[in-house]
Amino acid sequence: MGKLGIHSFVWTGGQTQEGLEMALEKTAEHGYRTIEFAYLRPEKFDLDRLAKKAQSLDVEIGVTMGLPRDKDVSGNDNDQIAGGKKMLADAVRAVRDIGGNKLGGILYSAHTKYDSLPTQDGWRNSVEAIAETAEIAKASGVDLVLEIVNRFETNLLNTTAQGLKFIEDTGSDHVRLHLDTFHMNIEEANPAAAIRSAGDRLGYFHIGESNRGYLGDGVIDFRPIFDALLDIDYQRDIVFESFSSAVVDESLSKACAIWRDTWTDNDPLAAHAKVFIENAMAEARRRRDTNARP
Amino acid sequence: MGKLGIHSFVWTGGQTQEGLEMALEKTAEHGYRTIEFAYLRPEKFDLDRLAKKAQSLDVEIGVTMGLPRDKDVSGNDNDQIAGGKKMLADAVRAVRDIGGNKLGGILYSAHTKYDSLPTQDGWRNSVEAIAETAEIAKASGVDLVLEIVNRFETNLLNTTAQGLKFIEDTGSDHVRLHLDTFHMNIEEANPAAAIRSAGDRLGYFHIGESNRGYLGDGVIDFRPIFDALLDIDYQRDIVFESFSSAVVDESLSKACAIWRDTWTDNDPLAAHAKVFIENAMAEARRRRDTNARP
Amino acid sequence: MGKLGIHSFVWTGGQTQEGLEMALEKTAEHGYRTIEFAYLRPEKFDLDRLAKKAQSLDVEIGVTMGLPRDKDVSGNDNDQIAGGKKMLADAVRAVRDIGGNKLGGILYSAHTKYDSLPTQDGWRNSVEAIAETAEIAKASGVDLVLEIVNRFETNLLNTTAQGLKFIEDTGSDHVRLHLDTFHMNIEEANPAAAIRSAGDRLGYFHIGESNRGYLGDGVIDFRPIFDALLDIDYQRDIVFESFSSAVVDESLSKACAIWRDTWTDNDPLAAHAKVFIENAMAEARRRRDTNARP
Amino acid sequence: MGKLGIHSFVWTGGQTQEGLEMALEKTAEHGYRTIEFAYLRPEKFDLDRLAKKAQSLDVEIGVTMGLPRDKDVSGNDNDQIAGGKKMLADAVRAVRDIGGNKLGGILYSAHTKYDSLPTQDGWRNSVEAIAETAEIAKASGVDLVLEIVNRFETNLLNTTAQGLKFIEDTGSDHVRLHLDTFHMNIEEANPAAAIRSAGDRLGYFHIGESNRGYLGDGVIDFRPIFDALLDIDYQRDIVFESFSSAVVDESLSKACAIWRDTWTDNDPLAAHAKVFIENAMAEARRRRDTNARP
Repeated sequence: MGKLGIHSFVWTGGQTQEGLEMALEKTAEHGYRTIEFAYLRPEKFDLDRLAKKAQSLDVEIGVTMGLPRDKDVSGNDNDQIAGGKKMLADAVRAVRDIGGNKLGGILYSAHTKYDSLPTQDGWRNSVEAIAETAEIAKASGVDLVLEIVNRFETNLLNTTAQGLKFIEDTGSDHVRLHLDTFHMNIEEANPAAAIRSAGDRLGYFHIGESNRGYLGDGVIDFRPIFDALLDIDYQRDIVFESFSSAVVDESLSKACAIWRDTWTDNDPLAAHAKVFIENAMAEARRRRDTNARP
Repeated sequence: MGKLGIHSFVWTGGQTQEGLEMALEKTAEHGYRTIEFAYLRPEKFDLDRLAKKAQSLDVEIGVTMGLPRDKDVSGNDNDQIAGGKKMLADAVRAVRDIGGNKLGGILYSAHTKYDSLPTQDGWRNSVEAIAETAEIAKASGVDLVLEIVNRFETNLLNTTAQGLKFIEDTGSDHVRLHLDTFHMNIEEANPAAAIRSAGDRLGYFHIGESNRGYLGDGVIDFRPIFDALLDIDYQRDIVFESFSSAVVDESLSKACAIWRDTWTDNDPLAAHAKVFIENAMAEARRRRDTNARP
Repeated sequence: MGKLGIHSFVWTGGQTQEGLEMALEKTAEHGYRTIEFAYLRPEKFDLDRLAKKAQSLDVEIGVTMGLPRDKDVSGNDNDQIAGGKKMLADAVRAVRDIGGNKLGGILYSAHTKYDSLPTQDGWRNSVEAIAETAEIAKASGVDLVLEIVNRFETNLLNTTAQGLKFIEDTGSDHVRLHLDTFHMNIEEANPAAAIRSAGDRLGYFHIGESNRGYLGDGVIDFRPIFDALLDIDYQRDIVFESFSSAVVDESLSKACAIWRDTWTDNDPLAAHAKVFIENAMAEARRRRDTNARP
Repeated sequence: MGKLGIHSFVWTGGQTQEGLEMALEKTAEHGYRTIEFAYLRPEKFDLDRLAKKAQSLDVEIGVTMGLPRDKDVSGNDNDQIAGGKKMLADAVRAVRDIGGNKLGGILYSAHTKYDSLPTQDGWRNSVEAIAETAEIAKASGVDLVLEIVNRFETNLLNTTAQGLKFIEDTGSDHVRLHLDTFHMNIEEANPAAAIRSAGDRLGYFHIGESNRGYLGDGVIDFRPIFDALLDIDYQRDIVFESFSSAVVDESLSKACAIWRDTWTDNDPLAAHAKVFIENAMAEARRRRDTNARP
């Protein structure tokens, strides 16, 4: 696999420069080699300072975001679509400027609980917006990955099959999928098979438990997940994600409906997740090798 | 176990008297002995006629509902709370009048994606409203069951442990839990253990797949679920629930975020679910008996 | 998939002509389209009569066997090896004469609990014996499949990887694997991955529970098993196998260590297994199709 | 839980005093606090020296064994039964003399692949022998635990239910069960439920993978196993067991049919198992606590 990372919201709600820098330090301290930030508004943070800190700590930066409702590129309002495209283009550049390697998340729609079915027009508008953003991302040397999330966080792309069709419709070779075990546990008929169907189109991977708490503190059977990542020879980043009401970000906590403290102390959480993921991957490798040895 | 039932939204969006009567007929035709209706407004439907039809078909009726936002008893607005209490009391009487045996669902809060954390005051207000409703339900001979649902459909009761504490706080012996495998798959660290912890406080049970489609077309391991239902000697109703964009109810489809057609033909779905549940229960009994036989 | 079948020892210990004919009738009556017999000595049974009965019932016959210790082709005793080869050749002809389509089982060693490690010489002798038998089988229009069994029933081929290497060493294109979920549950690090690695080399498949009783009355997770059979587009026969002390064959019951009555009544067992397998396969198809549908 | 231990055959075939002492050192070095030895013949080893070494390393000793065929107390031959009783009595004393805390294993029959069904007389003879041995063990301050093993290693006690009935028949309060995940994976319809049914009668517990190799390199779902150990508040020892052809004991390797090298290097195996078990137990505790927290 590629680098093992952790979402910054394990460490901080992300409201202050100090918080973000602490998150970078904690990430490095725990031996993770990449961090995921939510979209960082350039006017609010000293991105250059963050970039240097990340580099000095040898921690790579990825950025994820979801569009706000008034910049939804999967709608039919031209102004909103234009606003969404601009936001995506700005985000790509911010990722580039911070020295990040990817932009991911719910880039193709609002990150919200919708209250109507998606439309064909909305799909087309979204495909076009992502195709344009992909051009910019490609030119900027930034990977573009679309997060497939559960029905309560978008109405457009809830499954890998939908994501693959969407990418095909963009005609771009620069768009990949961003899969997440928490969401797959709700939406996919067979998460491992979904990973295998994504194959080389898988560009980013989130490991999260069914209740978004500690790994192992839920119902997900991670064995076939890791087996499938090996089956497709996945070499890109794997990032641990967990949310608790113990660390609150105004918008993300609401969008993700984080009402419970599944944990209060993030240091043991992060330490546990690293061992859990590394062991699970080593055990998957062993199963593969044992199965192959006559 | 008690009666095996099916949710009426497998059959109809529930907008017409004809639709509801057809649902009763389909339910009986497939051998289910109880049906779940969403709250039926007395002014819109001929409840008496429905009651007689149900009786003639030997199909029992259960009713579930979620409060609307403007009648949320878990909030702080006295008018809204009063409105919610009245709606609950009306619903209890409607269940009684239709000859139903239970009122369930999200009775303790709005059925909605919240955007703020629950409050202690809201909890107390909700406890009080449910305690009052329980008195009315008891007097009316109607069971009262509280559905524990995922974080995107309420912010108050997402886990069995929360539900048990809530019931304890009501001080009532007439309130029980309504658990659902779809929701447990998202929220419970250990669904089978949650069922065992509910024990005799479990009053109603929904069987639904992780993606709300066909049973077996998702990730839920139903074996420990049925084992646990036997462990607690569960004797009340078990109802199959599945939603598809193929059958749409204006409000429930939105609240439950049903954007995909996980099925289009409801007859084979209902036939499959009955065999699936009966086989799963028989296999659980066999495991129990085999484990006990020296 | 190909035909769904059942092992004759569900019906009879196989000591009499009447027992075998009853087994054929029961098999057909339950809707299975192939039966598995243990090696039938031509001098003891009226094979021609069996063949005609099978044909009239539209039930295909497969035959499995294990070599006795004194005819072990994986040993170093030339007389024993010659005896084993002759027995295999005779068995191929008997399958042909009874109108059967395959010879399977533990053809490459004795069917016994060994008490020493396999040797390289023994492997070579066994490979040669199977290569020779494969020529005869090919000429006779009989499929040859090698059953991979657990460590207590042979010391030579306990895993799919060993079986694939063995087949490669024979240089034959007429030898395939015979996998069995009971044995895989003991030996394979990842049964589903083993099935995928066998791919087109899988020639026959046994469905049996971990304790050899009712399907579902044990620990095997059959979902990934059926998913894998679909992944490799398996089109050959699938046969249900279950042993109980309620039906005893002198040699097989001992070799398989059947001390318990996991069931006493074979009719409901056979009826259950058919529904179980057909439902499991249908659910696997549905998972595949749901995963593929954007 | 009680102490975490490891079987000595991870370290040594057990043929020399040096091997046994090395095993003690390795056990302590890896942080295990108890070791399991196979029955140590007093005439062959310096038990006193071993006892002192164990004490100085703070490693407790447990001993397991299986009866040889010619000392089978579950048969009908009075001389053999007498020989078996004497062997058991000697073993109890040897455990006491070496400062050990328990005698376990297949004490109630031969450790062998039987070729006939158990008999009622044999059961009675075995019950009587174990009842007598229990008296001696009680007087000697040595726990007596009966290992429930798969059908290929005994014909008498293959399931927990059989074991509980056997213990009941002894009338002794000093006999407990010794369960093992490898064997349960073959024999129990529901291993977790079996553990719960054993309850306080569980005296010793083996953690082993389905293929007896690395934990995680097989099919066992350990989550419900550890959940069940917590359910019964199991406080006695848990011992990791793994066999490979890389370490050979003349008799045990044959009885257990160890033909493959599932590993070659025992240090990483032992280190991995310790982390695996401790993490699995911590995760089970977390599931329990999360499930209980409102």
